[in-house]
Amino acid sequence: MTERLVLHEYSASGNCYKVRLTAALVGKPLDRREYDIMKGETQTPDFLANVNSNGRIPVLQVGDRFIPESNAAAYYVAEGSNLVPTDPFDHADMLRWMFWEQYNHEPNIATLRFWMRYVGPDGLNDLQRAQMPGKRQAGNAALRLMDEHLRQREWFVGKSISIADVCLFAYSHVAGDAEFNLASYPAVTAWLERIKGHPHYIAMTA
Amino acid sequence: MTERLVLHEYSASGNCYKVRLTAALVGKPLDRREYDIMKGETQTPDFLANVNSNGRIPVLQVGDRFIPESNAAAYYVAEGSNLVPTDPFDHADMLRWMFWEQYNHEPNIATLRFWMRYVGPDGLNDLQRAQMPGKRQAGNAALRLMDEHLRQREWFVGKSISIADVCLFAYSHVAGDAEFNLASYPAVTAWLERIKGHPHYIAMTA
Repeated sequence: MTERLVLHEYSASGNCYKVRLTAALVGKPLDRREYDIMKGETQTPDFLANVNSNGRIPVLQVGDRFIPESNAAAYYVAEGSNLVPTDPFDHADMLRWMFWEQYNHEPNIATLRFWMRYVGPDGLNDLQRAQMPGKRQAGNAALRLMDEHLRQREWFVGKSISIADVCLFAYSHVAGDAEFNLASYPAVTAWLERIKGHPHYIAMTA
Repeated sequence: MTERLVLHEYSASGNCYKVRLTAALVGKPLDRREYDIMKGETQTPDFLANVNSNGRIPVLQVGDRFIPESNAAAYYVAEGSNLVPTDPFDHADMLRWMFWEQYNHEPNIATLRFWMRYVGPDGLNDLQRAQMPGKRQAGNAALRLMDEHLRQREWFVGKSISIADVCLFAYSHVAGDAEFNLASYPAVTAWLERIKGHPHYIAMTA
């Protein structure tokens, strides 16, 4: 695969970091184009018509075609590498954690982080404020489920790192930004350190 | 693949139907085990310890192993069939729609359907009631995005049906249960009919 890959992104987003970290781990070059979501740069007519009609980043550009959705973009970048298991059960189990991340983890931990760190308390409306305790509880339930799973294993699927780990790492390692107490989840903390110790690891700010 | 597949499910759930419909389309036998989620049957110590620690259905049992998450289970059932494109871009594009379904479609359309049809207005708490207008708006945005996509094509990805279509069909075809007006989305309506016309199609109540 030699086509040029361009990541359309907002670099502070953990969803965008998933794709960058995947590319680093598999050694693929990735061009980057930054949009300021706080200024509505992914809601312009040009972006909606030509990049993603859903108005969200990240979007991975492959030649002149586009793949929205962070976990699908990470999959594309990793395809054919050892980050994607070939055994059918392990492969489905990897997707299971990636779908779980989008349903049970990201809407709670990432959304709280965004509300608390980027929008700020004064920018939230009443409905958002009313949802915070539920998202706090669901975010802790997600971290607890991860912690229980990781007590018996080093990686989410099989015996080596996969993109399930990468996709779950993105918002787990910054959960403290949303005042989740990672020290309460020692197996998660140890797993975060294992990923940071990967020889090709790059930080979110890189 | 000759291992026995057992679907742990609540048959009124569109998420469970995704797996049954996939199995029907590819001609794989699927044993079924029913749980009444309204009676808490997926929250028992036995279910949490032995089937899914997340307390949700569907879960696909493969021999003595388990795959939670509807879209991952559908993928496992379809793997190797023509419901899973082999071209890397089309494959990632299929996953893109499946992740989008879990993030932008299911939490709005399926949740409203569950609240309105299964919990009922008297059973909802204030926070759920307050979230309904936002979910209505986001559900219509999801249907509109699907409609725009389908104006130019027959299937979500490439030139034939894939599990992206199956996973999006599950809650789209019953969106009327949550008082979404499908007649406003003619390309979606035509696509629903195409799926119902598949020679191996089974209804949700089958």
